[in-house]
Amino acid sequence: MLKPEDNERLVRVGPGKPAGKLLRRYWQPALLSEELPENDCPPVRVRLLCEDLVAFRDTEGRIGLVDAYCPHRRAALFFGRNEECGLRCVYHGWKFNVDGDCVDMPNEPSDTPMKARVKILGYPTIERGGVVWTYMGPREHMPEPPDFEWTRAPATHRLVSKTVEECNYLQAMEGGLDTSHASFAHNNHLGSKNTLRNADTAPRSEVELTDYGYRYISTRNAGEGRCYVRVYHYVMPNQQMRGAFTPLLTNLNGDDPYVMPKSDGHLWVPIDDEHTMVYNWACSSDQSVPLSPEFRDRWETWAGRGANDLIPGTYRLKRNRSNDYLIDRKIQKTQTFTGITGINTQDYALQEGMGPIVDRSKEHLGSSDKAIVILRRVMLEAIRAVERGEMPPGLAPESHRYIRPYDGVIASGTRWQESFAKELVAKW
Amino acid sequence: MLKPEDNERLVRVGPGKPAGKLLRRYWQPALLSEELPENDCPPVRVRLLCEDLVAFRDTEGRIGLVDAYCPHRRAALFFGRNEECGLRCVYHGWKFNVDGDCVDMPNEPSDTPMKARVKILGYPTIERGGVVWTYMGPREHMPEPPDFEWTRAPATHRLVSKTVEECNYLQAMEGGLDTSHASFAHNNHLGSKNTLRNADTAPRSEVELTDYGYRYISTRNAGEGRCYVRVYHYVMPNQQMRGAFTPLLTNLNGDDPYVMPKSDGHLWVPIDDEHTMVYNWACSSDQSVPLSPEFRDRWETWAGRGANDLIPGTYRLKRNRSNDYLIDRKIQKTQTFTGITGINTQDYALQEGMGPIVDRSKEHLGSSDKAIVILRRVMLEAIRAVERGEMPPGLAPESHRYIRPYDGVIASGTRWQESFAKELVAKW
Amino acid sequence: MLKPEDNERLVRVGPGKPAGKLLRRYWQPALLSEELPENDCPPVRVRLLCEDLVAFRDTEGRIGLVDAYCPHRRAALFFGRNEECGLRCVYHGWKFNVDGDCVDMPNEPSDTPMKARVKILGYPTIERGGVVWTYMGPREHMPEPPDFEWTRAPATHRLVSKTVEECNYLQAMEGGLDTSHASFAHNNHLGSKNTLRNADTAPRSEVELTDYGYRYISTRNAGEGRCYVRVYHYVMPNQQMRGAFTPLLTNLNGDDPYVMPKSDGHLWVPIDDEHTMVYNWACSSDQSVPLSPEFRDRWETWAGRGANDLIPGTYRLKRNRSNDYLIDRKIQKTQTFTGITGINTQDYALQEGMGPIVDRSKEHLGSSDKAIVILRRVMLEAIRAVERGEMPPGLAPESHRYIRPYDGVIASGTRWQESFAKELVAKW
Repeated sequence: MLKPEDNERLVRVGPGKPAGKLLRRYWQPALLSEELPENDCPPVRVRLLCEDLVAFRDTEGRIGLVDAYCPHRRAALFFGRNEECGLRCVYHGWKFNVDGDCVDMPNEPSDTPMKARVKILGYPTIERGGVVWTYMGPREHMPEPPDFEWTRAPATHRLVSKTVEECNYLQAMEGGLDTSHASFAHNNHLGSKNTLRNADTAPRSEVELTDYGYRYISTRNAGEGRCYVRVYHYVMPNQQMRGAFTPLLTNLNGDDPYVMPKSDGHLWVPIDDEHTMVYNWACSSDQSVPLSPEFRDRWETWAGRGANDLIPGTYRLKRNRSNDYLIDRKIQKTQTFTGITGINTQDYALQEGMGPIVDRSKEHLGSSDKAIVILRRVMLEAIRAVERGEMPPGLAPESHRYIRPYDGVIASGTRWQESFAKELVAKW
Repeated sequence: MLKPEDNERLVRVGPGKPAGKLLRRYWQPALLSEELPENDCPPVRVRLLCEDLVAFRDTEGRIGLVDAYCPHRRAALFFGRNEECGLRCVYHGWKFNVDGDCVDMPNEPSDTPMKARVKILGYPTIERGGVVWTYMGPREHMPEPPDFEWTRAPATHRLVSKTVEECNYLQAMEGGLDTSHASFAHNNHLGSKNTLRNADTAPRSEVELTDYGYRYISTRNAGEGRCYVRVYHYVMPNQQMRGAFTPLLTNLNGDDPYVMPKSDGHLWVPIDDEHTMVYNWACSSDQSVPLSPEFRDRWETWAGRGANDLIPGTYRLKRNRSNDYLIDRKIQKTQTFTGITGINTQDYALQEGMGPIVDRSKEHLGSSDKAIVILRRVMLEAIRAVERGEMPPGLAPESHRYIRPYDGVIASGTRWQESFAKELVAKW
Repeated sequence: MLKPEDNERLVRVGPGKPAGKLLRRYWQPALLSEELPENDCPPVRVRLLCEDLVAFRDTEGRIGLVDAYCPHRRAALFFGRNEECGLRCVYHGWKFNVDGDCVDMPNEPSDTPMKARVKILGYPTIERGGVVWTYMGPREHMPEPPDFEWTRAPATHRLVSKTVEECNYLQAMEGGLDTSHASFAHNNHLGSKNTLRNADTAPRSEVELTDYGYRYISTRNAGEGRCYVRVYHYVMPNQQMRGAFTPLLTNLNGDDPYVMPKSDGHLWVPIDDEHTMVYNWACSSDQSVPLSPEFRDRWETWAGRGANDLIPGTYRLKRNRSNDYLIDRKIQKTQTFTGITGINTQDYALQEGMGPIVDRSKEHLGSSDKAIVILRRVMLEAIRAVERGEMPPGLAPESHRYIRPYDGVIASGTRWQESFAKELVAKW
């Protein structure tokens, strides 16, 4: 249960809104690098934190992210011509470079002083890890560029994708940081106790506050004197990192011997208050093991966003709210807990099913919701810090540059802190 | 013409609204029994009086009608698992029985006190006449279950169906209680004076207030010293009963000798302020004559909602507002008054064509609108009664248990009260 | 840049709004004559200046334009029967003639006094130039009927069409009155300096205020000691007239020798604040040269609204906002400035791309925007005139009856006023 006014503070992301101001203090994903596949390629619409923008990669490979509308008469720059180091409006030919300067104004006399005066709103960008990041906050507070293990890994060892979710970023992120739902929503082997998650449906949770947010640890009884321990990171303000204990995925796919030591996670980036772009990444934990094409395909398909799962030409799922995620009630009776195919599609059904912005005043939270309660508290405190004129936490790259999540099985009575000490440090 | 503030009082049906409070004092149809065809079948979404609910039939055949959202974190219970006498949320496995008690909370420690405390909003239900009825008002005022002739008739002698109408319930019901439009909107034999309705387009109307609402009588000159008299019932708050003079239907279908003594009617059940679920029923008046499959098919097709007339998987008409009800202007010129196929589709075109909520301050009512004027007056008085803390009228089942509508032809100068005395009493 | 309150005054067109009141002082196109192809044909929905109306051509060819809803119970008259000199509501048979009088009320007693009292809102109409015009202002101020050269030309020498645009009328009209965009948005021959528009992209503009609005003149350097001069008319409140220098069109179509001396233009008629019906006309300037079928087809196709370019049964373009106007980025790189096919489709992309109502407070206007700045000033002054109880300008037909636009090439240093003197006078 959350006070309605706190809920409002957390969910509204437009310019000037409390959470909007907080989120703008961090580099945020704007689009995938692959959406701008080559120099002078067509511009791409970007809606981010309620702002309408357009991205383009110029003749020299630099990326501009500017206001969606030409400052002259507000024509849409999406229709613009990306040519000779600038984006040219097709209404009257005004042209802007990646910094937002007007570099040509051909429908005015050649000596017009307007050209020097007119600028278009533009945000700084940087490419890291297959993602174009941008910083939309006050320039004097711009932090160092994003620097996570997965953004440092080479493309051969990393994958990144994105999908649209039709609800507020916070309830999507809360779904990601929720640990106990995995035993239910993602139970794709009804009746089986073989998978570690199913063996114990009421995991113990610990949350440890850190410089960058928190890490949270779920511990399940794994039988035979063992525990299954998952160490996640919540990285402020909207990223999760998760270890992927390989045998688990293998079990989920049957008895496949395929082994893949890796971490993965999401960033829940608000498109606006009621839509979220979810960035999905995965990263090999072993420099000698790249992500094979087969793994990439199987991983994304398992998540529900494989090549055949998206509406062509979009980042939207074919299995979506309009068709009840193609729930199969017979499969739900006999094989999987939800009857919905795709791990993240299951998440979307649950998160979008709450409506665009969930009414948190009607919740009944229990001990399993500890990570979520603390998430909200950390976010609200960071919002207040910004309002007081202070720096919000997690901006110093040294605080999170070398973190890595991990899942593993340890003997009961052992401390994971020691058992996993080596595994919890980034190798890239 | 109606004062705008009275219109508002009549049309808004959400919790706490004047008409919403009145309608909640009566049992209302929630869905058809056939939508929950067997124990443990998939749950069904129900939107009723602006409330989002989910219905399920449990392992023992009991029907639950509960809040659409799990009280834990507001996941949609529509995706839930209906199993072992309860509906289980697929997010974290919380499970509720038909009474709304939480009977399992598997993601919390087994001794959690929350389980006993958490309840989900649930409404009582009862099945009668192929319909699942619910009562959404204060429990201390719950009346006896619905008990109409048609709900007592066996399935062999009764049919019931439902269709969605895209406008407020009141203008839909007013269309049903309107008698003179039958000579126009439903004139499917242009130029013919053979049908009784067409012979006289300005019927005389009488309205007699009763315990349960009113009965209203239209009298048309039928030629040769005869009158065609129709005795309808308006049963508070949102039902109509109508006799179906058999030769009339026969005429409408041409020279078919098929004869079916029956009554029929509708309930206009608000989905929300701008959408209505119309329940359609028909009931043989003769215990020796069941409703044959041919009759059922022909009746529903004649009404415009036959097997081929609905969008598959929905209760929506293929002939709808988005396609102008497939009006055929050539047929309108030569065969039928509207050019629209389906008696009730004609009604929908007219009622939905007014917009979602008609502006009654712009009406010009005449003597033919008497039943409608009195309907509004009866409803407004009942709303005031509820506001004064009194019982609204029509709740005592003895007031309407044995009523039956009737249509017939009598000699002019004869009183229908005597001629129809026997016919106006329920036989079931 | 425009003050937000002035923007509001200019863009809102509903009854009682400042611009709505101004626009209602002039005859406005309601629909095309061809939409009512014969007496007693089906009625047609018309939404005009935020009002919902229905048009019908009666048994004697007169055109009614009346409230969309029957005054009895507000059924939609669109479903009505157009028969025997009146439109009859199919709900209860009430019938109205083109003047709005109720001429039949068959569901009431034959001596009802209501019939004489009830009237339906109706606007006067007149057909001119293939268009049904209406006047929606105060009757005492009704001006003389529209009388432009193109409305006087016979059907053999004139064409008229209409297409829906999804934005406010003002930004659409501003696009029409903008002269410098032709060199960019409509440059369909990338890299060619052959076309006169491309030879000089920064035309000099003059605006001359007139009784009927203004005429505006753009002058481009055409090389070899010549100037290309275009003389347009802005005819209050929402019409543009444009000369079509024939070789220009020929050039656009390649080396076709086809020659067509003509003028053309648009009326931007508000459907409501966010939708516009654009009426497109063209008129031969030479009485000995009718518009051939080939010309008509090629002209409309060139504009983007040929027979194959409309969604069947509508006046909407297949190339529209929902599909990004089928922009072809490869064609944009190599052949045309926009990559969008159809001259007016290019306009729609730019005008609709601004959003339904452009935010003019964010503009940066230059010298090329002179005609637009003056347009707004003229409109605002006319709005104030109406508010002061004065007649707005341009109502006297003698002020614009004989105007004609013209494009032509003259020797530099010559005055177009003299060179074009004969060409700028209507011949019809």
